[in-house]
Formats: sequence, C-alpha cells, structure tokens
Amino acid sequence: MDIIRRGRLKKQIDESSLEFLQSLDADRWIFDADLLVDKAHTRMLLENKIISEKEASIILDGLKQIEEGGIEILELEAYEDIHACVESKLIELIGEEAGGRMHTARSRNDEVATCIRIALRREELKLIDYLNDLRGTILKRAEENVETLMPGFTHLQFAQPTTLAHHLLAHFDALSRDLERLDALYHRTNLSPLGAAAFASTSFPIDRDRTMELLGFEGLVENSMDAVSARDFLIEAISVFSIIMMHLSRLAEELILWSSQGFDMIELDDAVTSTSSIMPQKKNPDLAELIRAKTGTVYGDLTAVLTIMKAMPMSYNRDLQELTPHLLSAVTITKSSLRGMTKMIGGMRVKSESMRAKLDLGDLMATDLADTLVRECGIPFRTAHKIVGEVISEGRRIEELDEATLKEALDPALSVDRRKVTGGPSPREVRRMIDKRKKALSLT
Amino acid sequence: MDIIRRGRLKKQIDESSLEFLQSLDADRWIFDADLLVDKAHTRMLLENKIISEKEASIILDGLKQIEEGGIEILELEAYEDIHACVESKLIELIGEEAGGRMHTARSRNDEVATCIRIALRREELKLIDYLNDLRGTILKRAEENVETLMPGFTHLQFAQPTTLAHHLLAHFDALSRDLERLDALYHRTNLSPLGAAAFASTSFPIDRDRTMELLGFEGLVENSMDAVSARDFLIEAISVFSIIMMHLSRLAEELILWSSQGFDMIELDDAVTSTSSIMPQKKNPDLAELIRAKTGTVYGDLTAVLTIMKAMPMSYNRDLQELTPHLLSAVTITKSSLRGMTKMIGGMRVKSESMRAKLDLGDLMATDLADTLVRECGIPFRTAHKIVGEVISEGRRIEELDEATLKEALDPALSVDRRKVTGGPSPREVRRMIDKRKKALSLT
Amino acid sequence: MDIIRRGRLKKQIDESSLEFLQSLDADRWIFDADLLVDKAHTRMLLENKIISEKEASIILDGLKQIEEGGIEILELEAYEDIHACVESKLIELIGEEAGGRMHTARSRNDEVATCIRIALRREELKLIDYLNDLRGTILKRAEENVETLMPGFTHLQFAQPTTLAHHLLAHFDALSRDLERLDALYHRTNLSPLGAAAFASTSFPIDRDRTMELLGFEGLVENSMDAVSARDFLIEAISVFSIIMMHLSRLAEELILWSSQGFDMIELDDAVTSTSSIMPQKKNPDLAELIRAKTGTVYGDLTAVLTIMKAMPMSYNRDLQELTPHLLSAVTITKSSLRGMTKMIGGMRVKSESMRAKLDLGDLMATDLADTLVRECGIPFRTAHKIVGEVISEGRRIEELDEATLKEALDPALSVDRRKVTGGPSPREVRRMIDKRKKALSLT
Amino acid sequence: MDIIRRGRLKKQIDESSLEFLQSLDADRWIFDADLLVDKAHTRMLLENKIISEKEASIILDGLKQIEEGGIEILELEAYEDIHACVESKLIELIGEEAGGRMHTARSRNDEVATCIRIALRREELKLIDYLNDLRGTILKRAEENVETLMPGFTHLQFAQPTTLAHHLLAHFDALSRDLERLDALYHRTNLSPLGAAAFASTSFPIDRDRTMELLGFEGLVENSMDAVSARDFLIEAISVFSIIMMHLSRLAEELILWSSQGFDMIELDDAVTSTSSIMPQKKNPDLAELIRAKTGTVYGDLTAVLTIMKAMPMSYNRDLQELTPHLLSAVTITKSSLRGMTKMIGGMRVKSESMRAKLDLGDLMATDLADTLVRECGIPFRTAHKIVGEVISEGRRIEELDEATLKEALDPALSVDRRKVTGGPSPREVRRMIDKRKKALSLT
Repeated sequence: MDIIRRGRLKKQIDESSLEFLQSLDADRWIFDADLLVDKAHTRMLLENKIISEKEASIILDGLKQIEEGGIEILELEAYEDIHACVESKLIELIGEEAGGRMHTARSRNDEVATCIRIALRREELKLIDYLNDLRGTILKRAEENVETLMPGFTHLQFAQPTTLAHHLLAHFDALSRDLERLDALYHRTNLSPLGAAAFASTSFPIDRDRTMELLGFEGLVENSMDAVSARDFLIEAISVFSIIMMHLSRLAEELILWSSQGFDMIELDDAVTSTSSIMPQKKNPDLAELIRAKTGTVYGDLTAVLTIMKAMPMSYNRDLQELTPHLLSAVTITKSSLRGMTKMIGGMRVKSESMRAKLDLGDLMATDLADTLVRECGIPFRTAHKIVGEVISEGRRIEELDEATLKEALDPALSVDRRKVTGGPSPREVRRMIDKRKKALSLT
Repeated sequence: MDIIRRGRLKKQIDESSLEFLQSLDADRWIFDADLLVDKAHTRMLLENKIISEKEASIILDGLKQIEEGGIEILELEAYEDIHACVESKLIELIGEEAGGRMHTARSRNDEVATCIRIALRREELKLIDYLNDLRGTILKRAEENVETLMPGFTHLQFAQPTTLAHHLLAHFDALSRDLERLDALYHRTNLSPLGAAAFASTSFPIDRDRTMELLGFEGLVENSMDAVSARDFLIEAISVFSIIMMHLSRLAEELILWSSQGFDMIELDDAVTSTSSIMPQKKNPDLAELIRAKTGTVYGDLTAVLTIMKAMPMSYNRDLQELTPHLLSAVTITKSSLRGMTKMIGGMRVKSESMRAKLDLGDLMATDLADTLVRECGIPFRTAHKIVGEVISEGRRIEELDEATLKEALDPALSVDRRKVTGGPSPREVRRMIDKRKKALSLT
Repeated sequence: MDIIRRGRLKKQIDESSLEFLQSLDADRWIFDADLLVDKAHTRMLLENKIISEKEASIILDGLKQIEEGGIEILELEAYEDIHACVESKLIELIGEEAGGRMHTARSRNDEVATCIRIALRREELKLIDYLNDLRGTILKRAEENVETLMPGFTHLQFAQPTTLAHHLLAHFDALSRDLERLDALYHRTNLSPLGAAAFASTSFPIDRDRTMELLGFEGLVENSMDAVSARDFLIEAISVFSIIMMHLSRLAEELILWSSQGFDMIELDDAVTSTSSIMPQKKNPDLAELIRAKTGTVYGDLTAVLTIMKAMPMSYNRDLQELTPHLLSAVTITKSSLRGMTKMIGGMRVKSESMRAKLDLGDLMATDLADTLVRECGIPFRTAHKIVGEVISEGRRIEELDEATLKEALDPALSVDRRKVTGGPSPREVRRMIDKRKKALSLT
Repeated sequence: MDIIRRGRLKKQIDESSLEFLQSLDADRWIFDADLLVDKAHTRMLLENKIISEKEASIILDGLKQIEEGGIEILELEAYEDIHACVESKLIELIGEEAGGRMHTARSRNDEVATCIRIALRREELKLIDYLNDLRGTILKRAEENVETLMPGFTHLQFAQPTTLAHHLLAHFDALSRDLERLDALYHRTNLSPLGAAAFASTSFPIDRDRTMELLGFEGLVENSMDAVSARDFLIEAISVFSIIMMHLSRLAEELILWSSQGFDMIELDDAVTSTSSIMPQKKNPDLAELIRAKTGTVYGDLTAVLTIMKAMPMSYNRDLQELTPHLLSAVTITKSSLRGMTKMIGGMRVKSESMRAKLDLGDLMATDLADTLVRECGIPFRTAHKIVGEVISEGRRIEELDEATLKEALDPALSVDRRKVTGGPSPREVRRMIDKRKKALSLT
C-alpha cells in the first residue's frame, strides 16, 4: 500500500521545511475545484474508453464520499498538496485497482492550473457583483446630492465649487472601467489547461474539448507547455485588483479627510468607525484606514507574483506554488474592501451645510469672474486672469463689471449651473449622466 | 508682457527645486501631441464662436511657426512644463490679443491628460507592431524546428522529450495574450479628457465631441473630474508592459541557459552578444541579460505609479506629473526589448545535434514506459508508475514488455509522435497549431 | 459591567468587516510580549504609587492566571486586538476595581509598539543564530573543497577556473554583511516606546526608564509622538530580511543550476528534493525553488510596508495594524529559508569529477595564457589579449611561448595556484581566509 | 590600431540595441571615480614593478590629459561604458605600448564596482550634510514653537492638545535614525573591490591594500568573487534612501494638509508653492506634493534593484549594469528632497492663532478629564473613561469635580504642561529634548 503515499511528505523533512512545502489556505481554496476536475476527468476517461465503466463508477463513488465528508476528512497536513491528498484518500477508500487509474493521462501540473482557474473565475463573478453593488450605492448617493454644493479641490486647496453628485460620479466612472477590466480578465481566466499533463500532453487518446465543456470553460489553453506554465492570467488578476484597490484607496482617503474636524463635510456611520470609550463623539474611520492600508498589501502581492515569475524557465517549477497564496490574499482583500466601501458610502451622513460653508473660504469664484470678463468684455482669457489676480490680490472691487453681473458671477450655485457642458457639474448634466449610468448598471 | 510668464519658473526657486518641478524627457515626448491639442481646441473654439475667425487664424499661424521651428525653439528649461512653454512662445510670436485667447475654456489639467493619451496610443500601436514581428519570427523558427527533438524541463531537470517548435509555440501563445491586453488597453487609452478644464469643466459653450473627433479619439472620459484625475489607463499600461516583460524575461532566461556551455543547445548571433578580446569563442548573452534586468526596471515603474496614486484625493495634484516619466521609461524598454528579442530569436543558431544528445541523459523515457505498461498490460496508472520507478532504480530490464514494445517505448521521436492530442508536441499537431497561428497573425 | 467590552467588536459590523479589523496571527505572535508589558507596567505603576500595593498584587495575580491559561482561554475573535482581549479577560477575572486600573497612563498605541519590538527582537536573535549556523556550514563545506576545481562563471559562461571553496566563501562573506545589518537592526529595535500613551504621554508621574529596564530594552524611543508612530525599525527589518533572501536566492539558483543534468556539478540530498514515483533518479530541487520564490514574497512584504507608511500623517492611524502581518510573514520565511539552506548546503554531494571535467569546455585558460605572455615576453596587456584571441580563434599554437611554459599556463590547478593575491582562489589564500573566518565566527 | 576598439560598440547592433547597452548618465556619474581608480591602479602597478617607471609616467600623463579635457573629449556614445571609453582614449593619446598596460591585472568587473562605491560614498557624505541641515532647521523651528499649542492627531481626528515643537521633534528623531543608517551604510560602502579582476583575482603580484589606501577606502571586499558580484551595499543604500523618503513623505503630507484651507495651520513660502495667475491667494504646495510623489519613484528603484538581483548566479552578469541608474535616481531624488524639505520647513509661516482655535473643536480634553478623575477621586482608569464618555455624550457637566479643578482640567495649555514625563510635550521637557539634540547635532 506504499503507493497511496505519492506526494506524502517525507519524514526526514523536518517541521521547518514542512510549512515551506505547503500552502494550506490555498489548498482549501481549491478543494471544491479539485473534485470537479477529478469528476470531469474520470468521465472523459470513460467516454474515451481509457478506463472501464466499472472503474469509472467506483472512482466517482469514491469522489462522492470525499465530497460528502468534506475537506475535514482529509489529512491535509501530511501531503504536499490537495491533489496528492485527495488521490491518496480515494485509493484508501476504493483501493488501488480502480483508484490508481484516476490520474491516468494527467499530472498535478495541469490539475493545479485548472483548479486555480476554476476557483478564480468564481471569485471574479463575486467581485463583479460587489463592484456593481458599490456602483449602485454611489449612484444612489449621487442622485440624492445633485444640488449639494461643495468645494472641488486641486492640490487639496479649495479651487472651484462643484456638487457632491459630480464628485461621486468621478468615482463611479473609475469603477466602471474596473468592471471592464474584470470582465476581460474573466474571459482570459476561463480557459482549460486540463490534458496538458506534466507539460508534454499524453499519448492516451484523451479529449481536451470534452473536459473543457464539462467544466464550463470557454476554451482551451491550447499548447500543453503553455498550459501548465502560464500564469499571466494570475498576474493580470492581481494587477486588476490593484487598480481597484487604488481607486478604493482614493475614495477612502477622501472619507478620512472629509470626516476629520478639519474638513467636517461628512459623518461616517458607527458601524464602520471605532470610538474610544472616552471620546464618544470622536469617530475613527478605521475601516477607511484599513482599506487604504490593505491597498499596500495587494500591491505587495503584485510585486511578489511579478518577481516570482521573472526569468522563470519553462515549464513547471515549484516556484509557481508560491503564487496562489498571493492571489488568494489579493482577491480576499478586494472583495472585503468593495463590501466595506459600499457600507461606508451607503451609511455616510452628508453635512451639506458645512460643505456649503466652505465655499466662502478661499477664492473659489475667481475662475468664474475671469470667464465672465472674457464673455462680457471680450478680454482675452490670459488678460482676464491677470486682471482677476490683481483684483483679488489687492482686495478691491472689479471695475469692469456692473453690480448685477458681478453678483451673478460670484454665486456658487449659479457657477455650477453655468458649467453644463458634457461631463460638467450642472445639475441638469449630472442628472443626465446619472440616468445613463443607471441604465448601464441595470444591464450588467 | 508679464502675462506670457504664466507657468514660468520663479527665480527664487533654486536649482535643486528646478529639476524637481520639471520632467523634460516627458515634456519632449508629448510636444507633438500638445500642438495637435492646441490646434483642435482652437478650431473648436472658432466653430463655437468663442473666438473669432481672425483670432483663430492668427493662433493657428503661430502654432504652425512653432511646429516648423520644432521643440528646439522653445526655452523648455525656463518653464514648468511644455504647455506653459508653448503658450508663452505663442504669445511672444503673435501677441496677447490673439494668443491670450487660446487657453480659453481649458486648463493644463485636461491638456496634459489629453497629450499623454495621444502620445501613449501612438506607442501602443508601435508595440503591437513589434509584438507581431516577434510573434512572426517565433512562428518562423518553430516552423523550421517541428522535428527538432529537445529535452523538456520541469524544475530545470530533464523531464520528457519534446520539440523546439512545441516549446517556442508556448512563448508564442503567451505573447498572443499580451496582444489581447494591448488591444483592450488601446481602446481604454484612446478617449478624450479635453474640455474638462481644471476639473469642473467650463461655462463656455464648448463642444467636447468635436475635439474628440478632431483628435481621433473613440470617446470621451465623460465626467470632468474623472477626466483630469484618472490615471488608471496609465497604470494599466505599465501593468500590461510588465506582463510582456515577464514573458520576455522567461524567454531571455532560456536563451542564457541554452547558450551556456552547460546546456549548449543554441548559439546566439554575434550582433546580440559581447565577446572579450581574449576569449573570442565565449559569447556573453548581454542583450538577453539586459532584457532580463530591465524587466526589474519596468516592475519598478509599476510599483512607483501604483504607490504614487494610492490614496490620492481628487482632483488634480502635482503628484500626477511624476507618473509620466515612468510611463515613458516602461514603454521605451518594452519596445526595445521586443525588438531585441526578435533579433535574438531570428538570429540564433539551433544546435540540434547537441539538443538531441541531451535526451540520453536522465530518465526522460520513464513516463512513456509507464504509459505503455498501462496501455499494453492494463495495469493501473499508479501501479505502473511504481513498477517503472523500481525498474529504473534497480537498473534492471522491465519484464512486463517484449523487446519490440520496449524499444518503441524508449524512442524519443516516437514518444513525441505519440503525444498528438490537442496542444501536444507531435509534429502533425504542431503543424496544425502553426498553420492556425499563421492565419491569425496575418489578420492582425 | 459594560466596561469590560472596551475594544470588543461591535455586533453591527458584519463578518466581512470583522476579518478586516483583526490580524489574529499577528496577535498570537505578540501575546507573550503583551503579558510582559502588562507586568512591567503594573510594577512601575506600583513603584511610583500610581496604584496601590494591593491593586498591583491583584492585577499581577490575574495576569498570572492568563499566562497559565495561555492564549486558548482568550476569546480572541471577539476583540479588535490582543490588548483589548487581555484587559477584558483580566477585568472578568479580578473585577474592575483593580483590573480597571492596569491601563492607567497607557494606551494601546504605545502598548502595541512595545509588543512588536519585543517579539521582533526575539526573532532577530533567532535569525542571528540561524545565519551563523549557515555560515558555519558553508565554512565547513569550503574547508572540504579547497582544492576542488570548478569553472567560475561570468554571464553564465564558463570563464576561468576557480575552486568550490573560493566560490562558497563569496556567499559566506555576503552573509557576514547580513549579520552586521541584523546586529545594527537589533539595537534599533530594542528600544522602549512604553509610556508614550496615545502619543502625547501622560500627566501621571510614570517612570519610562523603569519599564525600559524591566523589559530589557537598551533605551527609549524618547519623543512620545515618535514612539507610537515610528515604524522605520519595522521597514528596516524587512529590508534587511529582503537582502538576506536576495543572497539566499542567488545561492538557491546556483544549487538549481548545478543539480540540473545540464551542469551536473552537485547532487542535493533526498531530504530537500522531491522525486516523482516514476523518475526516481530525477531529483527536483523543490526547497531551493521555494526559497527562490519566497524571496519574491518577502520583497512583496517590503513593498507593502513602504507603501502603507508613505505619506502617513502623525500620529497613530489604523493603517499601522496592517504592517505587523507583513513583518511576521517576512521573518518567518527568512528563518525557514536560512534553516533550509543550511540543510541543503550541509547535505549536498559535490561531484568533483564532473566539475573538473567542465574545465575542458570553453576557453577557460585564455586569461592565463595572456597573463603569461605579459609576464614572460613583456608584451602590453591589451596586445597580449589580442594575440591570444587570434590564436584561439584560428585554433593554432601560440608561438611566443615554449612547450613547458605553455603547458604550465594551461594547467587549471596551477592557474588557481598562481592567483594567490589577497582574496584570490589559490588554496593557500583560501585556507588563510577560512581560518580568519572561523575565528570570527567563533566570536559571534 | 584595432586594439583601441575594446568595448567599442559593434556596428551591427542597431540603434535600438545601443541604448540598451549603455547607461550614459550613470557613466557620467562615475567618470571622476574612474580616473581616480586608473591613477591609483597605475601607481600600484609601478610600486610592485609590474610596469616600469617610464610606462607609469606616460600613462599618468595621458590620464592627466583626459582629466583636463573632461568628459567632453570622450566619445561616450561609441562605447559600451566609461571604462572602455577612457582606456581607448588613453591608447589613442599615448599609444598602445604604454597605454595597453594600464589594464594589467584588472577587469572592468572590479573597476566598475570600485567606481560605483567611490561615487556613492561621496553622495552619502552629501546626504549626511543635507540631512543635518534639515535636522538643524527643524530644531530651530521647534525652538521657536515650544509653546505653540496645536491639536495632536490620531486617525486624522483631533485627539489631544500638544505643541508644534513636540510634533516637529517627532520628525527630528525619525531623521536621526536615518542618520544612523546612513552612517553604517557609509562604512559598508567604503570598501575596495579593486584587484578582484574578472572575479578570480590575478596571477600578477598586485597589492590590493595599496590601492585601497590610495583610494581612501577603509577596507577590502576581500573574496574576489564576492568583490565583483556583491551589490548588497547598493540595495542597502536604496533601502536607506527609501526610509528617508518615507519620513519626508509623512512630513510633506502634513504640510499639504496643514496648508489646506480645511486645516489652515501653516502657510508655505512662495518659493516652494505655485499660484495660478487667477487665484493668487491659493498656494499650491507643489514641492511637498512632488516629494510625496517621488517617494514612490524611490520605492520603484528599490523594487527594481531587488528584483534584478534575485536569483542572480555568480559572478558578473550584465544585469548588474542596470542597477546603477536606479542608484543614481534614488540618490538624486533623496538629495533634492532633503534640500526642498529644509526650504519648506525653514520658510513656513506658522498660523498659531488658527492652530490654537482648533483646540476648541472636538473633545480634545476628554483624556485630561478622565485622568483628573482618576487622580482626584481615585476612580479606576476604565471607570473614569466610562464616566467621561457618558458626560460628553449627554452634554452634561461632570459632577465629581469642583469648578476650579474642572477648569484646570479643561485648559489646553495646562494640559500640555502636565504631560512632563520623559518625551512628553510639556515646554520644560521639550526644551530639555531640544538642548540635548542641539548638542548631538553640533557633534555630527
């Protein structure tokens, strides 16, 4: 019965090495996928007469027992990986005569590549859902705040008036591009490497299209060497997640800033903040800070996988095993961050009075003044800028404009109204953009 | 005439700060794009009656002078950036009355975002060309080597026989996915932010669709705040380039290994190696080493841009300026690496005899033996593996098989022939894959 | 008794947020340190009459119960962190009247900073031990191989003969600099932030020097704001670990290359390789590959912590919590890698015959020939190089030298012997270096 | 005269490869060092009778001509690197009979390693100066603001009163640790690899200690293989610079926040900000933003060099050339950032009234209240926290304390005064810390 010990960790490797050879969390993550692959492969072997109906039936029955028992019945720590562990359990349950045939025309190299793709595509679908939840929530908050005036920033300086809706839509649009990238990623993930065996395919008459079909893949990773050694899909995934996290960290930073007493523009919900027992009014934006920080962790995962894959010769090398925990880390953080952000945006209280009050600080109306000068007096743009600069600098009244025009030029609400070009903050234009995005969202 | 000094660097900033505020190479990179944007914007201002026909004509004439003079006539070092420099030159040439109107309804914030996209899309088209050149060259070398036997590797150990063509196709397919990513990137790059002004759009009745059309963009970056502050397209670009470099570094590593006396499987062309005056036969694979090394530089560029954009609040911040040099670095390296790799693959001499000789080292035929046992004797896969392992270990002949079958099982060429499933190394299957890829390549 | 719920996670935060707010592994890592800090702080409070003898005694008794019960008696998942959890357990055990006083003049901000430093310094001492084990093993293998000739490489090309001992000493010396960096790091780690409270110290008359002394620290992180927000020691730690891993990855790469059939210069021990059941002679250098791969993970940890700390305003921010898991990851990998490398180097079988045979490939003696020409015939170095280059290129005999001199010039062993300058490979010089290093090692 | 073409770039390498093989800026950076090395090596060759007095004299004269002519007389673009270029120029100037002897017992491998170390140690000394300038400036501003009350932050929330001096000292202390790291780095940089030749040293009777001495090195990189292939000093350098930049980015972030209208606590000097022509009062903190952004670039340099050196086999590989531009980038940015920060801190106007006014926002005195309760009423710390929390929450007066005690507890200046433990913000303690640091600074 020595044979069931394939992939069993050798005793002479001591504890310190053991942890090195294993990646338990990653193994758990792909357990379900491994059973799916085993079943599809067995059925294909049967259909192509590589194993007999009886053998297939015994194998499938054994797999069912493992499925029902769950990962708990496996002695995961004793094996190099989940694949060796499942096969050994199978042989233990149903004997070698049948169980020893399941791995025919297969290798752990194509098996693990297939499992990772199955587990990842499932996560990508969840990410798409969570991303759309967040987009929906942002759109809802935008809709409520089409007329909520606030200062727009450049260089963190108050620059020109805008509305909260207009500001939120900027984040919505960034996340929409993330959705596009996720979608393309999904289709590059959902391809089957199965049948590539160790890297050189097999002399058994297998049917790769059949396992592809059974496992719900859209296509093959055709070349068998490419199939086992390609991990660009995994790096692409973490780079897409990194860009999502980059976007979330920008929004998180704004929530932190806006909820500071310095800006005092929003109040975050109790559910996403911590208070000290002693300063109950002080709400620490912990969740926003953690999303900001965990962006660094996902970047670190990206650095790691890129570095690992650099200059890696064909075909399978054990280094590839170290990639999966980074994928799992990055996808887990991105999922949680999307959900956390949805909760924060959904629950934040907008302090519209305080936002409006900020518009009286700084020289936020200077651009409007200059534009008015250009329009009303035909002065060149640069000249108008110069005049307004001097006027503000010297604290005097602008002589070129009459009282009424001046008043109009200096009203923040009118200023926003005037900026009604495509993509601008005027309430009418913002409502148009919201409607268009609601339709798009309902179609995803 | 003080007005032409907009964006002119203040004297009180000393040398040390100067270099900080500028990024000259990046400015040169977008000079052409800047003139295109100026012309399109001017024409649109005219069409929408924001400036007069006469003013437009004077401006366009001034821009033509600058275009003809070239970047050399600009005093680039004296200004913060190319945009300020061009505008000042224009005002110097044609006066403020007309020149002072060109920047109406615009800001450097939307201008620079537009210019980067124009410069980048041009590079992306070049990258697509270079990538296809490399793919074509790989395909050609594969075609020549459909029957060139070589050891396939796992863990850098000799594992099973394959062919050079099959191995090269693995790289071809990886690069084909890079092409897909480049293509998607191109369409996300080719969008117009122009008209967003500082971030809040403008009260002038501009037509953003018109400048989009004039500049050959496929669409708008609609929301004006998103338009000036979004840089995900730039990060996506460097992540796509990083994955290309990752692929090239893997191929470069193999060229280095294979041309070492240890493996002795290829000889690189003189044009891509260095020799010492004293060891003329020793060819150092410098170009391959540099491609491998520069992969690290592109990864560094990616780390930099991700880090810079983390937690960046809306809308424009000066930090964004620091992104462009990284984009330029990454795109330049990727272009050169693609061309260099094309030259290396195109010029390498395949030492097929030496490759073939490697097949006698190691136990490369073990898998074939076991598969034969399964097929001929009906022994379970795991059991067959065990038997072959013992046989090899003990150095004895395998009793289960007759002489002829054994000989067939141990012939590397037949071994490769047998592996004719989809994606496998058998010459027939490889020829099928090559034909399919040639057709695909001719269509791009 | 609501009070014991300080830091207890609020129910309204759902599961997805929970995992975000916690870092359980990191909490476990600092549990011992937390009890040490609690005890030292309590004793200092007593000595400075901030709490009474009776209160101190009750607190210390409660802490003893927790220490004896171990981390298992804590309800870790229900709290934000280990500190809140321990304090709550204490209050549960001994009541609020005494237990509610332990945290006087303290905050979780200085507490956690202190705990991380205690846990880290302990790991640093282990790392120093493991590093010295590896250095000792390398020295031993060098001593055995002072006369083992092998090809030295540049550009992975065979370049000049050297000895395995000389090659191994290069790695030894690199690791010796790692030891210097570890030592300096230890002293920058071993400083006490305790007493800084939230960041502004406290109005209670505490004695920071006393807790420093009780906890075995060498000094204070004096400024209280710096004390809670400084994490440069942690980044320095991961950068030192990254450099160690860089060195180990270089050695691992060589072990992988040398144990490939291409080079065939060493054989790794069974304990550190995997074999397939079917190819028993093929030994996959899994441990070396994993060390190489995990180098990427430690780099990723470094990227993460640097990114997280970029632009982090004073003083404590929740982001800091995300640093500790990266520290734990990096230190764990570095420890295991050092031990794994010691095992690999200690157990590898040197194939000296095969190494020696490589010296006949390539033009490894060209430099010796040229040097002989310079010495014997007074020809300038560059001219000699040119002559030798032509001679080798044309495959003819060198006319300037007589038979005996030529033979001497071309003997690899004599070539190595001749290079006896400080640091060179001649056996005498290498023995001198080994002796010097053995003495140094015995003193650490 | 073919011989002077050593290292001359081959014609058959086209433009695209050319840029790959060169790193001109890096070459310029080490030009001075290269001449120093040439001179020291020549003198040592003479002293050890490897070349004649006449030959040495001719060589040194030729080197003098190159030194006087400067880098401009070299045809840098035509050669692979500065070393080949200088040697070729020398042979052109003085002929091969003498010039062809300069490179005796040397290789570009040890030459370039030596040059980088010389160029780097010079930069490190500058960095130490600039760092001390910044430390001195911070100390001066701290001294002026010992009693300037300001809110201290946790989670960017206003938390407890402190002083600007106390806050600034936190940055001072962080930079002091950077100085320690720079100092240690300097001593690990300042070691001589010269004499290692290609990697195997030389059979000529050179004296490595003599060139070490002549070049002002403190010791040798002894083992000759280590000498040419070690680059840990370079990685350590960029990691030390990364930590400096991390510290500067934190300070830069605070300057950006504090000079925003949201916080309005400082005003930056005109010399370090940009204003738009139209909003003269709005000062964009460009320099602070660029320091923040360039931190990402230095991190990118670190990622690049770590990645490049991962798994790099011994000894010299062309990859190493790609490291130097990153070193140059990182050191240049760090120098400029230190100077820029010194200018910003030195020139910033402290808005002490506005800072003081912030202390009335939020519940900044809550901790003081609780501490008073503990001290005055003997209530346990946790209980006191609970009471204060309820009192603030319900907006009522605290009953346990009389009017006078309450008033005292709520006075920010008294609050700061009370926190006089080591490292605390009380003016007396801060003055003590300043004095101690001034003494330390005067000794560096």
